[in-house]
Amino acid sequence: MNALYYTGNKNFEIKETVLTPLQPGEVRLKVAYCGVCGTDVHIYHGNMDKRVQIPQVIGHEVSGEVIEIASDVMDVRIGERVAVRPLKPGTPDASDNGYKHIGKNLKFIGIDTPGGMQSYWNVPAYTLHRLPAHLPLTLGAMIEPLAVACHDVRLGELQSGENAVVIGGGPIGMLIALVARQKRVNVIISEVNVTRLELAKKLGFTVVNPKENDLVTVVEQFTNGAMADVVFEVSGVQAGVTAMTQLPRVRGRIVMVAIHSEPKAVDLFRFFWREIKLIGARVYEPEDFEAAIALAASGALPLEALITQIAPLAEAQQVFETIDNNPAGMKYLLEMNGQ
Amino acid sequence: MNALYYTGNKNFEIKETVLTPLQPGEVRLKVAYCGVCGTDVHIYHGNMDKRVQIPQVIGHEVSGEVIEIASDVMDVRIGERVAVRPLKPGTPDASDNGYKHIGKNLKFIGIDTPGGMQSYWNVPAYTLHRLPAHLPLTLGAMIEPLAVACHDVRLGELQSGENAVVIGGGPIGMLIALVARQKRVNVIISEVNVTRLELAKKLGFTVVNPKENDLVTVVEQFTNGAMADVVFEVSGVQAGVTAMTQLPRVRGRIVMVAIHSEPKAVDLFRFFWREIKLIGARVYEPEDFEAAIALAASGALPLEALITQIAPLAEAQQVFETIDNNPAGMKYLLEMNGQ
Repeated sequence: MNALYYTGNKNFEIKETVLTPLQPGEVRLKVAYCGVCGTDVHIYHGNMDKRVQIPQVIGHEVSGEVIEIASDVMDVRIGERVAVRPLKPGTPDASDNGYKHIGKNLKFIGIDTPGGMQSYWNVPAYTLHRLPAHLPLTLGAMIEPLAVACHDVRLGELQSGENAVVIGGGPIGMLIALVARQKRVNVIISEVNVTRLELAKKLGFTVVNPKENDLVTVVEQFTNGAMADVVFEVSGVQAGVTAMTQLPRVRGRIVMVAIHSEPKAVDLFRFFWREIKLIGARVYEPEDFEAAIALAASGALPLEALITQIAPLAEAQQVFETIDNNPAGMKYLLEMNGQ
Repeated sequence: MNALYYTGNKNFEIKETVLTPLQPGEVRLKVAYCGVCGTDVHIYHGNMDKRVQIPQVIGHEVSGEVIEIASDVMDVRIGERVAVRPLKPGTPDASDNGYKHIGKNLKFIGIDTPGGMQSYWNVPAYTLHRLPAHLPLTLGAMIEPLAVACHDVRLGELQSGENAVVIGGGPIGMLIALVARQKRVNVIISEVNVTRLELAKKLGFTVVNPKENDLVTVVEQFTNGAMADVVFEVSGVQAGVTAMTQLPRVRGRIVMVAIHSEPKAVDLFRFFWREIKLIGARVYEPEDFEAAIALAASGALPLEALITQIAPLAEAQQVFETIDNNPAGMKYLLEMNGQ
């Protein structure tokens, strides 16, 4: 019955969970697992102190079980196993263009409001997606990042037989590669971390280390000169941005997945010259969660292979320190109600 | 019977036209008018000396009359009045993705091969588009830049009732604005040159000088908070690139029309945050020429108002100097067979 509070400056404190009463429309979850996202690491580093309200429980990659339901909630039953789509749409703004998942007044649950790194968690019922009975709750905690990948692949409009380059083989990059391959897209992963390269190879991907081989030449060979139909920029660094415009064929697409907190130098001439498209993609819509759950439940993706460690909540501080010291790791899950 | 040769270093020489024999597939045009494009000015400045073959006749915004036809050319008749689509597709490359208009081995006629600033000009018959009898040949010389605008608007997927911002009110920006307005799009033009602003106003456009008013605020007001469905970046400068990402609504589009010869600082975060698309657009496809001719022939566009000066070929050197000294000018036409 514990909660992990971020208290600022790379510190967490574990406190007893306070069970707050359910608001209308809410359910209470017994949280099973909560994955650690890159955003959680940013918060840990103090980079988002203006957005979180210290002390705050963070975390938004959650699987759990419904244990209590507000009286006005329909269509949810106690005992259901669920994943949480952590988006709370705010008042619609004219500039939202009707899109609720990234509206101007959107609150991201676990950043702008308390998150899932606690034993019990109240969330709006509309955030829930049911998990099939045979899907382990460990994989249930990976539905959120997998939904990001499904969204990115969907907005990239990938077609069977196309060639895709994923720049950056971290958890999201690897999930994008897996989802794209499932659509019979030919995928090559560009990554500089040797351990991540090894994992990608083990998962059957063609890989390239752009520090050792010329990425353009490798993609030329991989595609028999056709070059990439789609490039996913997931690296977040200038080298990835420089590479992304060199790889697409005429009218190829680049999906901007990474969060570039500072402006980057972009070869806009290349967009003009080859009529390339850049497509921004952020979080997910409900259908991406459904697609992610169906994919995970199908057993077609080697999701277990992406789990680096499952640790009890009590060890959260060490887990964040490990992530800082081991950039080769992939997905870390915290167990909220374990022994 | 003269030709204008670019001889390097801001210099032209006028020489007698040499009538070369027609190659298979070619026709000979008696050139009526040739517009001066920004690219011609770049050549004049010496910026493209690696690409042109000095001394070279340049020019690619041409109207004229067919006066001779190679024996293998079908479907063209002597006396036809035409505009020229100055693209010569080369050997297809795998990375062309089937697109001929911007293939890797494309030659641009008037840059990579001799151009239309001469009294008589041999061109492949497949480059010709017939002009309706009532369309003046002065406007025929504006079909090429108008086709650029039609291409940009088409790739921007503009829909009736949408809001568009054109950043940069030069000839191409103004033509984009006119084509977009014709599709019942609400257009606002951002421009810093006072004379161009006045012209845009006279043509009935809402305008903003971003040096005097905050562009974001003006677009907010113009769109009642909805912000832009489409932004056309036609300025080619960093200020335009900085503005372009601030203006679109969620899932809005930015069409990259300008030629940015150097990488620019781009707010990639904004692409991610609002799921914005950047769409590169270059030259035109045959359907854009047909659309441009239909629009010009309809009389719906005030194309005459964009013609700053019509000068005889003999005055070409002064015209290029005038363009350098008068950035407020719009379209300059050279008359090839005048008195």
